[in-house]
Amino acid sequence: MQRSLIGTPKTALDTPALCLDLGVVESNIRRMAGYFQDGPVRLRPHTKTHKSPVLAHMQVAAGAIGITCAKLGEAEVMAEAGLKDILIANQIVGAGKIARLVNLAALTEVMVAVDDAANVEELDRAARAAGVTLRILVEVNIGLNRCGVVPGQPVHDLACRVAVAPGLRFEGLMGYEGHTVFIRDPEERRRKTEESLAGLVESADLVRSAGIPVQIVSSGGTGTCFITGRYPGITELQVGSYITMDAQYREEVGMDFAYGLTVMSTVVSAPTPDRAECDAGLKTITQDFGLPRVIDPPGWELAGLAEEHGHLHRLDGPPLRPGDKVEIVPNHGCTTINLHDEYWVIRDGVLAAVWPIAGRGKVY
Amino acid sequence: MQRSLIGTPKTALDTPALCLDLGVVESNIRRMAGYFQDGPVRLRPHTKTHKSPVLAHMQVAAGAIGITCAKLGEAEVMAEAGLKDILIANQIVGAGKIARLVNLAALTEVMVAVDDAANVEELDRAARAAGVTLRILVEVNIGLNRCGVVPGQPVHDLACRVAVAPGLRFEGLMGYEGHTVFIRDPEERRRKTEESLAGLVESADLVRSAGIPVQIVSSGGTGTCFITGRYPGITELQVGSYITMDAQYREEVGMDFAYGLTVMSTVVSAPTPDRAECDAGLKTITQDFGLPRVIDPPGWELAGLAEEHGHLHRLDGPPLRPGDKVEIVPNHGCTTINLHDEYWVIRDGVLAAVWPIAGRGKVY
Repeated sequence: MQRSLIGTPKTALDTPALCLDLGVVESNIRRMAGYFQDGPVRLRPHTKTHKSPVLAHMQVAAGAIGITCAKLGEAEVMAEAGLKDILIANQIVGAGKIARLVNLAALTEVMVAVDDAANVEELDRAARAAGVTLRILVEVNIGLNRCGVVPGQPVHDLACRVAVAPGLRFEGLMGYEGHTVFIRDPEERRRKTEESLAGLVESADLVRSAGIPVQIVSSGGTGTCFITGRYPGITELQVGSYITMDAQYREEVGMDFAYGLTVMSTVVSAPTPDRAECDAGLKTITQDFGLPRVIDPPGWELAGLAEEHGHLHRLDGPPLRPGDKVEIVPNHGCTTINLHDEYWVIRDGVLAAVWPIAGRGKVY
Repeated sequence: MQRSLIGTPKTALDTPALCLDLGVVESNIRRMAGYFQDGPVRLRPHTKTHKSPVLAHMQVAAGAIGITCAKLGEAEVMAEAGLKDILIANQIVGAGKIARLVNLAALTEVMVAVDDAANVEELDRAARAAGVTLRILVEVNIGLNRCGVVPGQPVHDLACRVAVAPGLRFEGLMGYEGHTVFIRDPEERRRKTEESLAGLVESADLVRSAGIPVQIVSSGGTGTCFITGRYPGITELQVGSYITMDAQYREEVGMDFAYGLTVMSTVVSAPTPDRAECDAGLKTITQDFGLPRVIDPPGWELAGLAEEHGHLHRLDGPPLRPGDKVEIVPNHGCTTINLHDEYWVIRDGVLAAVWPIAGRGKVY
């Protein structure tokens, strides 16, 4: 419905507007693809960040072997939009969800993570009943202490259960070094990441020693991609945030991708010269990784977020008046994007397209 | 599309599911309406909390004189669903938004807040051009230090500008004592609230002394409704959260409304006896007012939220297994509801309806 607005300058859009800078996003996709174009590791970008089939297709066109999803609902959206070879990097539990998973597996290539023997049994039973084969990765807890079995014998034992299940095909292992992706010191980040990956790769070798092929060993986030992507034995990376970039990754971890996501906002009240209120609050932009950053006008910062308001505090910037525009870089793209129904896609400063965020809210 | 699921027990729904307990919500609506049924203050409930025209109609049926909205987009949704007499308790700034506001005012009764003379001029110009009359409240900063002019002469001056603008109708004043609604000590909460309201009511008298009638003096949140609702000179309350209740209001401020909102979640991983992961993370439930609370099973708590996972920590509860259900009370309904597309409406423990959260994401 906003097609008639195409060509509108970014600064003239109704606000708050979640703006995707297409040139930056294309450059980030090309850059990440370029780093790994000669292998041996391959990219399977995580679509939990952008939730957009359009962007997922762009990642695949740039060389990604498939995509990673966080939830079954996201995977359904991506499959319906023509994406193939989808890893759901999560456990799918319970009869209702497994019925959906099996149905999805009959339509496209799907892999799913497991960390529990009873779950392996229920997946196998459902797959056999439906006459499909589910592709399985065993999830290994490599230090994040979230899901996953501990490295070593428990991985071997669960892999054996998968390998002998007629409805399942054991594809390999996955981990996630989420506990190291934000470590600021590069040497410490490298050391802790490699420690974590050692357990994953050694577990893969243990499974192989039982005569079970391990095709896939998947791990990695944006903050560790250059470590994990070069670690011997890792075959796939699940990078997500690099596509639009988060402030924490760029400014604290030092990852050299550009900001492709901003929120355009409008000042609605400017009661004193030193403070103003804009129309981007907690329902527009998240603060789970800290307060977002004002990039325009210079000399202003966000001092806090209420539900419907961003509290702007003047450092040394020009005075603001109601109606003035404020451009803000989210600190966490994944959760901010999840608040919005559409991207206002910007190229060279003007609106080029409006793309639905089709995976938004697909948490189930 | 989920109509075929009606009658399903709450515990058998696909998760995560945002569940609205209809009996509790009806009781909360009745209770709040009952407190103020003899006046003189009237209720204009804030729909930013529930974002549901169905619930807004229930509040009006129970005696509310109209509704309050936070954003123009919410007001449009409510008006399209047949709600009348809508206060947008916010500034509407800029040509595009004002064009929408004027259009809405031609369809239904709308009021809007102002705190700036230039904004008054642009609203007047647009209203006259469209041949409508916009109803206006002057917003007063009564201590929250967000929007609003300071009490006293500035209120008088802005009210005079509104009163003489041919396209506008001055209706009165609004404030919001958001800085006192969470004060735990009842006496301090009362003292600080009454201090704030004094400035609002005195400003109204000052405006009246200039010969300008002040029909409406609106303020109040759930945490202060019994103070503000009995304060002489206040005519309307903008209560919102009471309808489903927030943990902070109930357990820290001591407001006696019941929890009408829970998230049903499923354990997806239980790696050790003392911890488990459920499928409700930051994209399902918010933590801006603190971590949500597990109400079932007993003896477990949330230790943290990741994007897609809730980290469950055992206190003295029974062991959990993948597939087990976990029921969680959000700590902040307003932002949690804004993550979801629909309410799973529960009565007597089973699904009674599925209601769209039509105002979700309508931040613009």
